[in-house]
Amino acid sequence: MTDVVSTDPRTGAAVAAVATETGQEGVDAACSAAAGAARPLAELDRLARADLLRSLARALEEDRAELVALADRESALGTARLNNELNRTVHQFNLFADAVQEGGYLEAVVDRPADTPAGPRPDLRRMLVPLGPVAVFGASNFPLAFSVPGGDTASALAAGCPVVVKAHPAHPATSVRAFEVLSNAARAAGAPEGTLGLVHGVDAGAALVRHPEIRAAAFTGSTRGGRALFDLASARPDPIPFYGELGSLNPLVVTPGAARKRSAEIAQGLVGSFTLGGGQFCTKPGVVLVPGDSEGRALVDGMAELVTGAEAPVLLTEGVRHAYERGSGERREETVPGAHLVAEGIAAKGGWAAPVRLLSVEAAELDPAAVEECFGPVTLVVFYDGPEQLGSVLRDLPPSLAASVFAEPDELDLRAELQSELAHRTGRIVHDGYPTGVAVTAAMQHGGPWPSTTNALHTSVGTTAIRRFLRPMAWQNAPQEVLPDELRDQPVNPVPRQENT
Amino acid sequence: MTDVVSTDPRTGAAVAAVATETGQEGVDAACSAAAGAARPLAELDRLARADLLRSLARALEEDRAELVALADRESALGTARLNNELNRTVHQFNLFADAVQEGGYLEAVVDRPADTPAGPRPDLRRMLVPLGPVAVFGASNFPLAFSVPGGDTASALAAGCPVVVKAHPAHPATSVRAFEVLSNAARAAGAPEGTLGLVHGVDAGAALVRHPEIRAAAFTGSTRGGRALFDLASARPDPIPFYGELGSLNPLVVTPGAARKRSAEIAQGLVGSFTLGGGQFCTKPGVVLVPGDSEGRALVDGMAELVTGAEAPVLLTEGVRHAYERGSGERREETVPGAHLVAEGIAAKGGWAAPVRLLSVEAAELDPAAVEECFGPVTLVVFYDGPEQLGSVLRDLPPSLAASVFAEPDELDLRAELQSELAHRTGRIVHDGYPTGVAVTAAMQHGGPWPSTTNALHTSVGTTAIRRFLRPMAWQNAPQEVLPDELRDQPVNPVPRQENT
Repeated sequence: MTDVVSTDPRTGAAVAAVATETGQEGVDAACSAAAGAARPLAELDRLARADLLRSLARALEEDRAELVALADRESALGTARLNNELNRTVHQFNLFADAVQEGGYLEAVVDRPADTPAGPRPDLRRMLVPLGPVAVFGASNFPLAFSVPGGDTASALAAGCPVVVKAHPAHPATSVRAFEVLSNAARAAGAPEGTLGLVHGVDAGAALVRHPEIRAAAFTGSTRGGRALFDLASARPDPIPFYGELGSLNPLVVTPGAARKRSAEIAQGLVGSFTLGGGQFCTKPGVVLVPGDSEGRALVDGMAELVTGAEAPVLLTEGVRHAYERGSGERREETVPGAHLVAEGIAAKGGWAAPVRLLSVEAAELDPAAVEECFGPVTLVVFYDGPEQLGSVLRDLPPSLAASVFAEPDELDLRAELQSELAHRTGRIVHDGYPTGVAVTAAMQHGGPWPSTTNALHTSVGTTAIRRFLRPMAWQNAPQEVLPDELRDQPVNPVPRQENT
Repeated sequence: MTDVVSTDPRTGAAVAAVATETGQEGVDAACSAAAGAARPLAELDRLARADLLRSLARALEEDRAELVALADRESALGTARLNNELNRTVHQFNLFADAVQEGGYLEAVVDRPADTPAGPRPDLRRMLVPLGPVAVFGASNFPLAFSVPGGDTASALAAGCPVVVKAHPAHPATSVRAFEVLSNAARAAGAPEGTLGLVHGVDAGAALVRHPEIRAAAFTGSTRGGRALFDLASARPDPIPFYGELGSLNPLVVTPGAARKRSAEIAQGLVGSFTLGGGQFCTKPGVVLVPGDSEGRALVDGMAELVTGAEAPVLLTEGVRHAYERGSGERREETVPGAHLVAEGIAAKGGWAAPVRLLSVEAAELDPAAVEECFGPVTLVVFYDGPEQLGSVLRDLPPSLAASVFAEPDELDLRAELQSELAHRTGRIVHDGYPTGVAVTAAMQHGGPWPSTTNALHTSVGTTAIRRFLRPMAWQNAPQEVLPDELRDQPVNPVPRQENT
């Protein structure tokens, strides 16, 4: 049995073995338990499920000090950021509890018998029902918000689906602790045994996605890893939906007017955004399009100055640092021909620390389709020469989770044209703001065309993330007694519904 | 170039070459035209798109006589049925027009700036936007309702997506005519050139699903064909959603009470349902579970009597007849060991006609997991001995689009237990009715777990079918001027929306 070892990124030293990799038997046991929990969890009263979610939020809050300390020791993200991350996760469980209680997410429709131009219509009632056990893959960069606790787990449980998490090896101790906290709280709240499971190891992750009892999977991570798991999910005898959030460049456009009017402000905001969390956000602005005129170059000079004085953040893992050096270091021309180093931050000292870097390239030298996400504190400035060249770069860049436009009030036509161009290639468009910072709310969309996600029809952040784990079901001519409460003529706990008579 | 030949199923004779198979160049041309139409169609005013759908409905109505005559000549389904089918399609276009005009399908949300427990929230506005060009595969069994015109085409256009149809070879003349009618009407209504395209041939279908400009595909047909296309869609460099409606057994359960009280009525209803349209419905009750007691056997005797006098329907194609003979004829034991012929209808005469057949098997002899759909006028009665054996058969049958329960008022517990068992394995549960007859309405669900569909999260019938071709998009801090009308503070044509302040 292979040990799962917790490492300290600040020193690079192994701290302790905290688990062993899960074998096929362990995966089978977790999936069978989840399958056993599926029906009782689905049949749990909606209000009881909302209470369950609130209990999980409270339990995380009660264990805050230990969870944050563990996560900081394993991720080096700092306690301020990790406390905010836990705030987000607690809020998210409570938000889903409210959504479940309100019930609009069920999309309930009651069609009473009627004559239609296509013939008589029987009594038909529809609402969404849980898909069954869900596999959730923890992400390295959000040990408390996209991992054992987080959006995928919360939305799957909110939908009424048991969850088996594949722990991320970057923070196994945090994963084990968070799992204990959540499963104890679930048990105490009366959730069926098997509602939550945890497995460790790459092979266990693959076995999860292939397991006959798993009905959907949610993943946040690299394009390569996500694609491999997507292919496994699609190749099953019974394919299952695989919601992968993969790589994203999140282009940010600065118009000539914005470069002229807001140079210093944008330079500062941009450096803050691309170095936030060590540049390890899926919404990091990875490509910044700046006019090639003197004002654009002055903006980038401003960025360079800030970068030069920037501390070297500690990255999450040895693998992240290695990929960062490959993509942004001396051999960067292999991935982006023509790219050169504009500025570099303070040299790194120890562990997985790495210096902040600012790269640039002239649009005429760039092959936009070949640009790939480089995780870590680097961004690539592309100097463009006029709106046509700008449009052509935007059209050829791979689609993204988010995109930003900085423009002035007197550039409204250009703003509209840029939005129109970007809208086809992203899930969220930000005006005069940075793509980092993804609010957990009903109007959020965190998901875009391939390769930013495997499935652009859904989001992994915000209340509508619950829709990924639900399928519609129709009851035709059903006696009142066998209908779910939500669809009865006189429901005990009514939900918003469309009624056609 | 290979001719596409229209055949008369009543005689089996080739009537005329009506087209040639589309080569790669033709597919490229159709997809490029669709891609060119995508943005203008998406940016078309919502009310203009509703009008476009209504124009298409009117054009089909105006060409009714010719379309029905052609479809009857190519499918032998009869003019009464085909007129009803056209009613359904016309109604469907109008229903989607109403849905587009109302706008609730956009799932619009406006979140105004606020402080949340997880930090400040910016102005965020979300709604659904069209995916882009959609490939639609015509089905053999509904030349006017799941083909060039029909639910997939109507819902994709309603979503704002251009459509390229792959014509079904069982009715090429109908396909060509329907395409002319729809594209002339679209052009007259001001739709962009490329809004509709048509290709012929198996290779063209595969090329469509692989084409870089195609963003989603919808298919109704065999499990084998659907799986092959699903695999192509999933293996793309940029995978696309593939909505396949494949094979379905649609189990129908008769309880002991129902067999006792309603034997004659159910026998007649069942024979009507499984022979409707020559048994060529995806919702045909393909497995009928009847108690093995004397009352259950009397019910099946009643069915046998009706089958013996039944005319032999003309099937759609030589291939359908061939598969029907293999699955229900003398070698049926190869597919369902233990199955034997209970009754056979009047012998077939000429063309692709085939006799009605009633098969039965004892539950103890059956391997439920191995039962496959057999297209055509046959059903398999399974005699069960008590509720445990019934439950075990239901648990092992492959999932279905629909399932039916016939039970008496004093069997409410049994009805609830059967529903609970079936609910996990179907998309629609019908009480005291037959699964054939799929109303086009908001509460319909036509889609279930694999293998009944490739994607249980959606439906191919009913107004929510539009959701398959839409993805969410969020606007953050957008100036009013660049927001779509639906998300502005003062919309010209308001839609239902969730507002969080």
